[in-house]
Amino acid sequence: MNVLFVVCDGMADRPVRELGRKTPLQVAKTPNMDRLAEIGITGIVDPVAPGVPPGSDVANMALLGYDPYEHYTGRGAFEALGTGIDLRPGDIGFRCNFATVDASGVVVDRRAGRISTEHASRLVEALSEAAAELGSELGVEAIFTNTVQHRGVLVLRGEGLSRAISDTDPGENGKPMLKCVPLDDTPEARKTAEIVNALSERFRAVLSRHPLNKELPVPANAVLFRGAGTLPEIEPLSELYGIKGACVSAVALVKGVCRAAGLEVLEVPGATGSYDTDLGAKFSYAIRALEREADFVFLHIKATDVASHDHAAGKKVTFIERVDKALGEALDRLDLEQETYVLITADHTTSTRTGKHEGDPVPVALAGPEVRPDDVSRFDEVSCARGGLCRLRGMDLMPILMNLLGKVKRFGF
Amino acid sequence: MNVLFVVCDGMADRPVRELGRKTPLQVAKTPNMDRLAEIGITGIVDPVAPGVPPGSDVANMALLGYDPYEHYTGRGAFEALGTGIDLRPGDIGFRCNFATVDASGVVVDRRAGRISTEHASRLVEALSEAAAELGSELGVEAIFTNTVQHRGVLVLRGEGLSRAISDTDPGENGKPMLKCVPLDDTPEARKTAEIVNALSERFRAVLSRHPLNKELPVPANAVLFRGAGTLPEIEPLSELYGIKGACVSAVALVKGVCRAAGLEVLEVPGATGSYDTDLGAKFSYAIRALEREADFVFLHIKATDVASHDHAAGKKVTFIERVDKALGEALDRLDLEQETYVLITADHTTSTRTGKHEGDPVPVALAGPEVRPDDVSRFDEVSCARGGLCRLRGMDLMPILMNLLGKVKRFGF
Repeated sequence: MNVLFVVCDGMADRPVRELGRKTPLQVAKTPNMDRLAEIGITGIVDPVAPGVPPGSDVANMALLGYDPYEHYTGRGAFEALGTGIDLRPGDIGFRCNFATVDASGVVVDRRAGRISTEHASRLVEALSEAAAELGSELGVEAIFTNTVQHRGVLVLRGEGLSRAISDTDPGENGKPMLKCVPLDDTPEARKTAEIVNALSERFRAVLSRHPLNKELPVPANAVLFRGAGTLPEIEPLSELYGIKGACVSAVALVKGVCRAAGLEVLEVPGATGSYDTDLGAKFSYAIRALEREADFVFLHIKATDVASHDHAAGKKVTFIERVDKALGEALDRLDLEQETYVLITADHTTSTRTGKHEGDPVPVALAGPEVRPDDVSRFDEVSCARGGLCRLRGMDLMPILMNLLGKVKRFGF
Repeated sequence: MNVLFVVCDGMADRPVRELGRKTPLQVAKTPNMDRLAEIGITGIVDPVAPGVPPGSDVANMALLGYDPYEHYTGRGAFEALGTGIDLRPGDIGFRCNFATVDASGVVVDRRAGRISTEHASRLVEALSEAAAELGSELGVEAIFTNTVQHRGVLVLRGEGLSRAISDTDPGENGKPMLKCVPLDDTPEARKTAEIVNALSERFRAVLSRHPLNKELPVPANAVLFRGAGTLPEIEPLSELYGIKGACVSAVALVKGVCRAAGLEVLEVPGATGSYDTDLGAKFSYAIRALEREADFVFLHIKATDVASHDHAAGKKVTFIERVDKALGEALDRLDLEQETYVLITADHTTSTRTGKHEGDPVPVALAGPEVRPDDVSRFDEVSCARGGLCRLRGMDLMPILMNLLGKVKRFGF
């Protein structure tokens, strides 16, 4: 037996005025999600705690069974892991942005005009060399690389570093780029902040004279650092439950969380993390992994969240319906009577009104060989609240699933 | 957007034989509470934990979002705060009673014949002077004052005091007044117990020769001390959530909890904490605070609990109906579509049979702009158990409300 765990990012919502005070999930035609609710058991889930809006890193950690209040060690490590860097204990990872900064040091565009991946890669050639050089001057290893468009990752490796430092990213356009400062009174934090500030200056110098920046409509003349993080000390799912697991996601941050949990990251061509993503390919890769040897596949779909951040309720409905269709095709290929448990949920509520992650619970439906079906037959935030799973925490789902696979050790005699 | 949080003390109950095995809430005609249930979301709440009967201090702390298992530091501090004393860290507060004690030291009336506030105030003139005098002999500041009828407050201020001491109040009539003893083996506890015993004796001496006691039908010839407590170390709601909040309550203990949480205490003329309280005035003050600048008003109504302690099921039903009527008039003045969230609940179950606080959960209904309505349309202990909030802890309500106002910080990226 095995598990397909489908997470639609930010799919849950609050009642939306333009949808007649219904949520996108209530309005969308979702016969396949409804079928899971109908034949399975449903409930609502507080990703971390009632009323607390979780970040994507924290929410997905919790859905994978780890208590983020105990184990969360910052975003940067997940970003680094998610780009394929083999982060080691003690390494400090950072999420980075190419940005455009004016002469007075004010960030005018935190995404450098959404610079193309190709252009960013050309700049990274120069920067990664500069990082390595400066690192060796300062007695650390400094690894800088880019992912998609303006996005990049920095890793600092060496003795005596700390993640207790602030961001250089001011968080919004029109504000000055910040100095990195230590957040506690340790020599490690002071040292790490100094290294980040030195890198920040060196990068600006290198970028200011880079020939590509003369060609670009908006120069990428700075790199912003944020979310310093270290590898969380968590036991991988393979050891916790003795399972083989994989994940499908287009988002580096989510891939990183999955890698930290010991899941194999499957790279799926056509998975973009946007509306144009190839949902069929994502489900196919997931099913193929289950058919081979995976006990557990975590399938993450991003664009439901993108629509919410864009305040696009209609687009959210349409995309949910596309997910439902792809889910239906997947269900036709799975044996829910004998072999496979399918769980569908969201990692958090994202309000299409506020455009932000919110702390409201998310619906969950779970179908498969031996669940106890309840009488809920619609998959949405309101219907599932009457379900047989009642109200759970995000970190409760994995033990429930692993118990259905017979993988949870008995506690006591 | 803002929140009106209505708490009816001990309103929840168990099925009552004389009400045909229904609860007072089930029997009462409550069209306005039902309307909140109908348009809103409902659930049941364990004030502190399933099966645990909470005191009013602990229950209201939890409803304000503080985990009492972590933060509760005794009743006395809340009593002192609630009477308007600016308690400082390290101060020890006590709830006090004027009492009648016979020649052998047995407490014959723990309330000194429910002495009038006016008479008690005359005695307090002499006692507060005696307390100040004895305090300066013993190297501490001792502040004694009265509130309503037989009720008073003592505060000890100085170095090296402890709240780990026992009560001098035996808790029921017919038992001897107790010596205060240290509850741990520290010099602070021993010192504090000695001071309390010295004050206890000095007060008896002063009261025994006080001329008023010759006129009273039942002499108030002793003061009982109980509930030694210190200021809890909690972050006020203003800092936790960046809100401005106020409270309306006639009960010193509840006012004290609210002050500890950083709420402004609104003094409402006609708020008595009894059946004759002016409910209209209380709601009006609350609404006026919301109209001015409060993000959050905590409105506490006492007499539901009084009826329960009096074993008066019929009176409880009648008073609940009066609350409902006042609530209805308030709802007519509020904009629940755009502006205001209204939550109604009880701080605990009080059984009209046992006359005691019980550990059963309480119903909750929450209506307002962006809640997800469920299909419950009756506000009572049984109907709300099927609601969309499912079963929560008391301390979960504040994060849920503050999240609806956009005031809860995201956890993680």
